[in-house]
Amino acid sequence: MTTLLDCQRLDSQDPLRALRDLFELPAGVIYLDGNSLGALPRAVPARVAQVVAQEWGRDLIQSWNSAGWFDLPRRVGDKIAPLIGAGAGEVVAADTTSVNLYKVLSAALHLAAQDAPGRRTIVSERSNFPTDLYIAEALCKERGCILKLVEPHEIAASLGADVAVLMLTHVNYRTGAMHDMAAVTAAAHAAGALMVWDLAHSAGAVPVDLTGADADYAVGCGYKYLNGGPGAPAFVWAHPRHVDRFWQPLAGWWGHAAPFAFTPGYQPAAGIARFQCGTQPIVSLSALDCALDVFAEAEKFGDMAALRAKSLALTDLFIEAVEQLCPGAFTLVTPREHAQRGSQVCLTPTQQLPAGSAYAIVQALIARGVVGDFRAGDAAQPDILRFGFTPLYLSHENVWQAAQALREVLLNQEYALPQFNRKLAVT
Amino acid sequence: MTTLLDCQRLDSQDPLRALRDLFELPAGVIYLDGNSLGALPRAVPARVAQVVAQEWGRDLIQSWNSAGWFDLPRRVGDKIAPLIGAGAGEVVAADTTSVNLYKVLSAALHLAAQDAPGRRTIVSERSNFPTDLYIAEALCKERGCILKLVEPHEIAASLGADVAVLMLTHVNYRTGAMHDMAAVTAAAHAAGALMVWDLAHSAGAVPVDLTGADADYAVGCGYKYLNGGPGAPAFVWAHPRHVDRFWQPLAGWWGHAAPFAFTPGYQPAAGIARFQCGTQPIVSLSALDCALDVFAEAEKFGDMAALRAKSLALTDLFIEAVEQLCPGAFTLVTPREHAQRGSQVCLTPTQQLPAGSAYAIVQALIARGVVGDFRAGDAAQPDILRFGFTPLYLSHENVWQAAQALREVLLNQEYALPQFNRKLAVT
Repeated sequence: MTTLLDCQRLDSQDPLRALRDLFELPAGVIYLDGNSLGALPRAVPARVAQVVAQEWGRDLIQSWNSAGWFDLPRRVGDKIAPLIGAGAGEVVAADTTSVNLYKVLSAALHLAAQDAPGRRTIVSERSNFPTDLYIAEALCKERGCILKLVEPHEIAASLGADVAVLMLTHVNYRTGAMHDMAAVTAAAHAAGALMVWDLAHSAGAVPVDLTGADADYAVGCGYKYLNGGPGAPAFVWAHPRHVDRFWQPLAGWWGHAAPFAFTPGYQPAAGIARFQCGTQPIVSLSALDCALDVFAEAEKFGDMAALRAKSLALTDLFIEAVEQLCPGAFTLVTPREHAQRGSQVCLTPTQQLPAGSAYAIVQALIARGVVGDFRAGDAAQPDILRFGFTPLYLSHENVWQAAQALREVLLNQEYALPQFNRKLAVT
Repeated sequence: MTTLLDCQRLDSQDPLRALRDLFELPAGVIYLDGNSLGALPRAVPARVAQVVAQEWGRDLIQSWNSAGWFDLPRRVGDKIAPLIGAGAGEVVAADTTSVNLYKVLSAALHLAAQDAPGRRTIVSERSNFPTDLYIAEALCKERGCILKLVEPHEIAASLGADVAVLMLTHVNYRTGAMHDMAAVTAAAHAAGALMVWDLAHSAGAVPVDLTGADADYAVGCGYKYLNGGPGAPAFVWAHPRHVDRFWQPLAGWWGHAAPFAFTPGYQPAAGIARFQCGTQPIVSLSALDCALDVFAEAEKFGDMAALRAKSLALTDLFIEAVEQLCPGAFTLVTPREHAQRGSQVCLTPTQQLPAGSAYAIVQALIARGVVGDFRAGDAAQPDILRFGFTPLYLSHENVWQAAQALREVLLNQEYALPQFNRKLAVT
């Protein structure tokens, strides 16, 4: 069994351990929710203060030029690009993941309507993040298309001659299960469908190679593993073969070929800039811009493969420790197979524990300073305890402590305490 | 002729003069571009620092509850509501003006398709802010509708039996001309059309009464006269008679009836909450939230009518001073009539000045610390010098100084200096 000393030894040998100092982490907290809201990079408060006091307060309107606000979505996109296997100039940071998904699905349906007019179905997973399904449902309602929801094992068989788009989230938000991006994309293309990836739980957490996988479109989130702050703008990518054929109805002035000509008649900008619509929230976008410098710093200690190796070591360790310290109490929801696992571990209580105890266990852990989160189940899916493991700022010792805390919660039956059973989780 | 002493006397009698102290204004600058980017309210830097360091950095994910992030778009909406004649719970702050316009135009076209299926035209002004026209153009392309652009004097005659929606900006961004909201809305309704208002240059600048005017939908901007910071989230309103019939395709999880149930199948929330889509940029939205407290503070000294009275006094004074100090040099583009004027004054050079001098004059003024902006003309419209007058933080003396600076620029022919003639304006 792995001991605390083993963990401390692993930490002392961890080539990435210095990266933790790039973050402000509250004392007494083991933060296992970076998959929902990334921790605060230490450089961000000063950068945000500078944007507010100097760029806005002192330089006012001229900061659109002097501080480069207008190009900020593209500069931030260029920082995200290497994390997802995209080229320079291919990514833009703007709007929300939902809005960007609307853009790329619109674009994909337009391409399909031109190239394969009989294809009018979007296939996705029933357990995809709901907002992705809502956006697809809305577009289908608008365009007279069909949204077909399947289980993961049914995806390949679902790719019939009616399918225009396969839309998947690379790492499932509930289970942490990860798709083989290259294989799934190849299957979609072999079936004549376009491939749209949501990288919300991948970007900054696992190696992603959109170009290598030959994907068509992608969107992702700025505030999870990219640590851009609450509600940080999202990002969007289109393969260069599509980008100048792209048309999407959120045709605002920031995506215009000549945004400052102020002329009627929409002419989309060349390249990814046409995915922009309206004026972006510069303060929040600047926080994301600054946060992404952590990844440039991380390169000094190891590349995305090194981050991935540590992420797998942490999730392996958590799985092992929970199984040893809380035997029989939980079923592992996340795949054990490395190639199928993102950077999180999800558990569901077994019948050893009272029905409905998942929420209270998460609350009891939070009271002990171990912050994970709860996702309610339904008829098709169990309640889960969700723990994200960010290799940038978590140690092996943190993982050991988290598993020990979980053991204590069970031993003391803290999940039965009334203060942990009151209200619904909302994050 | 009004003298500097007259202006200083007017300032000493100004009941709103204390409000200037609520803003950080750079020394040596007379800022006449608050219609493009409002100045920094003094309370904002500390509030933003608190959101970053404490709500994000220390409290992390629990701030969605403890700091009320999830409800922030509605709380901010409630602060905007009294400025635009809307009720509590009727406004939400989210996304960008362009995206919100897409939502309300989609909604309006859906209502028209149900209630008056033959009506498939959107009427707007040719000189409307271009992004509004781009969004309308894109929606028309999607839905097979027609966008008909007219001149202001042609609006009434354009409202035929084919018109589903009249979409106008209340105060024109180039000219400062203001529509009579109640009369135009009544004309649209009499003709069987729905009325959509863009309040980008109105909210916080002039009294607006959406309820009194019986308007149908409105959108507006957070970073102009509301002083929310660069790219601050925008806002959106629907009349209560429409809001629960409203359907729009940006159907993301923040607009769902049960956003944390994470269930497939979109069910819109009741009321204005359904205008939300994805997770909002909390840092930027918090800056707007804090900035809006200036209007609550302003209430101690005078209501929106008092702000309006000062705004008209400032714009009257600027018009008078320019005509006296720079006789014959400019044509007034903004209406002289109070009822038709927003909170800005726009000028175009006459033939006394060299062709193309408008840009250089604006640059020369900026070099003198008087910050206005330039808007390029085209075949249909002249180049303009644009000056916004924010009654919250400008004095009569500022106006006098700005007019004096303009006189100096002309007397010294500074518009001919090469350093002011180089590049295109981009704001």
